[in-house]
Amino acid sequence: MAVSGPEPRPLLYVVRRAHFSAAHRLYNPRFSEEWNRRTFGKCASPHYHGHNYTLEVVVAGSPHPETGYVIDLAKLAEIIDEVIVQKCDHRNLNTEVDFLHGLIPSTENLAVAFWRQLEPRIVQGRLYAIRLYETERNYVEYRGEYDAH
Amino acid sequence: MAVSGPEPRPLLYVVRRAHFSAAHRLYNPRFSEEWNRRTFGKCASPHYHGHNYTLEVVVAGSPHPETGYVIDLAKLAEIIDEVIVQKCDHRNLNTEVDFLHGLIPSTENLAVAFWRQLEPRIVQGRLYAIRLYETERNYVEYRGEYDAH
Amino acid sequence: MAVSGPEPRPLLYVVRRAHFSAAHRLYNPRFSEEWNRRTFGKCASPHYHGHNYTLEVVVAGSPHPETGYVIDLAKLAEIIDEVIVQKCDHRNLNTEVDFLHGLIPSTENLAVAFWRQLEPRIVQGRLYAIRLYETERNYVEYRGEYDAH
Amino acid sequence: MAVSGPEPRPLLYVVRRAHFSAAHRLYNPRFSEEWNRRTFGKCASPHYHGHNYTLEVVVAGSPHPETGYVIDLAKLAEIIDEVIVQKCDHRNLNTEVDFLHGLIPSTENLAVAFWRQLEPRIVQGRLYAIRLYETERNYVEYRGEYDAH
Amino acid sequence: MAVSGPEPRPLLYVVRRAHFSAAHRLYNPRFSEEWNRRTFGKCASPHYHGHNYTLEVVVAGSPHPETGYVIDLAKLAEIIDEVIVQKCDHRNLNTEVDFLHGLIPSTENLAVAFWRQLEPRIVQGRLYAIRLYETERNYVEYRGEYDAH
Amino acid sequence: MAVSGPEPRPLLYVVRRAHFSAAHRLYNPRFSEEWNRRTFGKCASPHYHGHNYTLEVVVAGSPHPETGYVIDLAKLAEIIDEVIVQKCDHRNLNTEVDFLHGLIPSTENLAVAFWRQLEPRIVQGRLYAIRLYETERNYVEYRGEYDAH
Repeated sequence: MAVSGPEPRPLLYVVRRAHFSAAHRLYNPRFSEEWNRRTFGKCASPHYHGHNYTLEVVVAGSPHPETGYVIDLAKLAEIIDEVIVQKCDHRNLNTEVDFLHGLIPSTENLAVAFWRQLEPRIVQGRLYAIRLYETERNYVEYRGEYDAH
Repeated sequence: MAVSGPEPRPLLYVVRRAHFSAAHRLYNPRFSEEWNRRTFGKCASPHYHGHNYTLEVVVAGSPHPETGYVIDLAKLAEIIDEVIVQKCDHRNLNTEVDFLHGLIPSTENLAVAFWRQLEPRIVQGRLYAIRLYETERNYVEYRGEYDAH
Repeated sequence: MAVSGPEPRPLLYVVRRAHFSAAHRLYNPRFSEEWNRRTFGKCASPHYHGHNYTLEVVVAGSPHPETGYVIDLAKLAEIIDEVIVQKCDHRNLNTEVDFLHGLIPSTENLAVAFWRQLEPRIVQGRLYAIRLYETERNYVEYRGEYDAH
Repeated sequence: MAVSGPEPRPLLYVVRRAHFSAAHRLYNPRFSEEWNRRTFGKCASPHYHGHNYTLEVVVAGSPHPETGYVIDLAKLAEIIDEVIVQKCDHRNLNTEVDFLHGLIPSTENLAVAFWRQLEPRIVQGRLYAIRLYETERNYVEYRGEYDAH
Repeated sequence: MAVSGPEPRPLLYVVRRAHFSAAHRLYNPRFSEEWNRRTFGKCASPHYHGHNYTLEVVVAGSPHPETGYVIDLAKLAEIIDEVIVQKCDHRNLNTEVDFLHGLIPSTENLAVAFWRQLEPRIVQGRLYAIRLYETERNYVEYRGEYDAH
Repeated sequence: MAVSGPEPRPLLYVVRRAHFSAAHRLYNPRFSEEWNRRTFGKCASPHYHGHNYTLEVVVAGSPHPETGYVIDLAKLAEIIDEVIVQKCDHRNLNTEVDFLHGLIPSTENLAVAFWRQLEPRIVQGRLYAIRLYETERNYVEYRGEYDAH
């Protein structure tokens, strides 16, 4: 790849993983109990259940020549801790997290909400993707995209 | 090893792993809110949190010569499902599980309670141990023993 | 991103993981035994070997506002079970699976064949990718793309 | 612990993990097809299925003062490779492994057979246990014991 | 089990897992370079190599009736952090850890040394075992026993 | 997708995972000790630390009709072993690896350096991505791209 001017900088994707444990239930208050039970099955169970969530935060950018870092992963870990873990860990996602109020806490909706909290805080590199694991078998990825279909 | 009489039968430990997701909180109602918060920290959070629990059930015995099985692990899986998973999965361990009523749902207490539910149901081989993982970092094992110290 | 008209809907990738255990061998009947042995090494071993396969199915779409779901992962799990697991689990991939007849069951070919079975069945959201793990060290991803090189 | 004479040597358990992929089926030729199907379910499927087996070999002993090793784990890995992996990897456990002939290849029976192959070869320290994982959910442990029940 | 007097207390084994990353090499200064290279192979490489170590600490005891805890795992985590992780993480095990001076840092020797640091600090319950993973394939367990062979 | 001429060939991404253990430290010799300590924290610890690195190499291409392989993963494993593992395993990444001289061995810089070693050697299919895990919580991906921001 011929490039004039300064040497092109490689584009890396760096990932930091975090964990939190929370209670939730899937429930849409605009519909009946029966609709919720039929739609969400045991996930609508009224006294809540919970998960050990795993969150992966992917930041894209080029390594700074002085450090070799896209972003100091210890700093990224602090941001994730402050913005997400401190607010969600050992909490009830339906009732206790300010930025989730009014939201059905499906993994999809959580991932979009986490993106919106994290995106303005990532100033070295840029937020590229979030992966949120509800269990080892179920997870979602969000890349800040909108659906054109 | 010289043995007279019938050929000695090897003693095996067979293990089946199961998963369930549940809400809980650590709280002792005989003490004040302040005591609970001081003792259990964020685990006492009043609106519950939750975990993806992993349960390992270990059965000891010798393989039946006709099958090579200590116990059919599909049958063991059914027992675990009926006795534990159906009652605990997507449930609140403080309020919704009959055999946990009145118990502080620490991992230790859960393991002992699960043993007592499972032990009478294991009739091929005998229950040897239970391992209950609350997270990847915290787990307990119970072998049906009593503390002599 | 300025958008006129209805609010843009976030595009999510939701993933469901499944497992099956199967026998196979790599063998091309149009060539000699010697060619097969030289080309596939121990993977051509005539009496078969086998694997615990892990399959990840990735569906892209936007969460439905009533449910927060791109697709109910319990429904996706049922589709995967019906279309793939029921046909492949505890089976011989060379001889027993109708939609694999005539195919060398390499992980690559399996992934493409699984895509073609699953794609018409995914009607909420759209199939985005399949990841198939033959072992922890070897896996493939297929996104329904064709090679332009 | 007061000990006269030479300093007591700590007793350690060192573990080496290995992997192999093999085909098998559960089938007892002394019984009918119908008995086998009823007893072993899909595990009796006639054209075989297979697994990625994980084998853990536990050797007990005290570290040699010159090396800090109970046994050089690279040497233990070579023994496991020669005695088990070379014979079982990418093989059919019902038909191709000499020391398994006539055996129903249940995980229990495999573990005892592997113990008998490995035990005479472990001359630094002594074989303490074998753990054989058929899947992530099903595994067995054998410690060379006999059942007194 | 008929017991007179107070109700017997179940004996549980609670486990806490921790991680640290460190450099080391296997080298016995009482022998020649050539002996070290022959004995330890690439593990004797002079400029060090390193590992992500995983440490599991197992404490035995009965749950306190007021808390359901054998030991508060957050407190156990603090002890492990203070006694082991703060001293070993991002350190050179051959040169920088006071309680390892003069020791060949084999996994076996590390496990015994960690036991001796931790054992006097565990005053709720009693230290039962340490498992130290050098890699996913190599690990050791120490239970405070001495070898009678 | 209507295509004239020969049948379009599916584009697959095949992945091979490898492991190596190495020592490193993060240190920029153009700056003071104090700057390095402030910038890299414990990662600058002068006597090195180390990690069990996991490397995933992703090759894109279409399966050859005679083999069903994009690339024989055993051959890919040999290339990874020759080009990366033999040079880095049980080595010091700051001082002992020719192609890393003069580089701060951050995970980002390692990934780009590994890409440059591997890319010319992948002649069946083409190198698509590298994922390098320093720990289970920290990893990077490089796809041979340059940053346009």
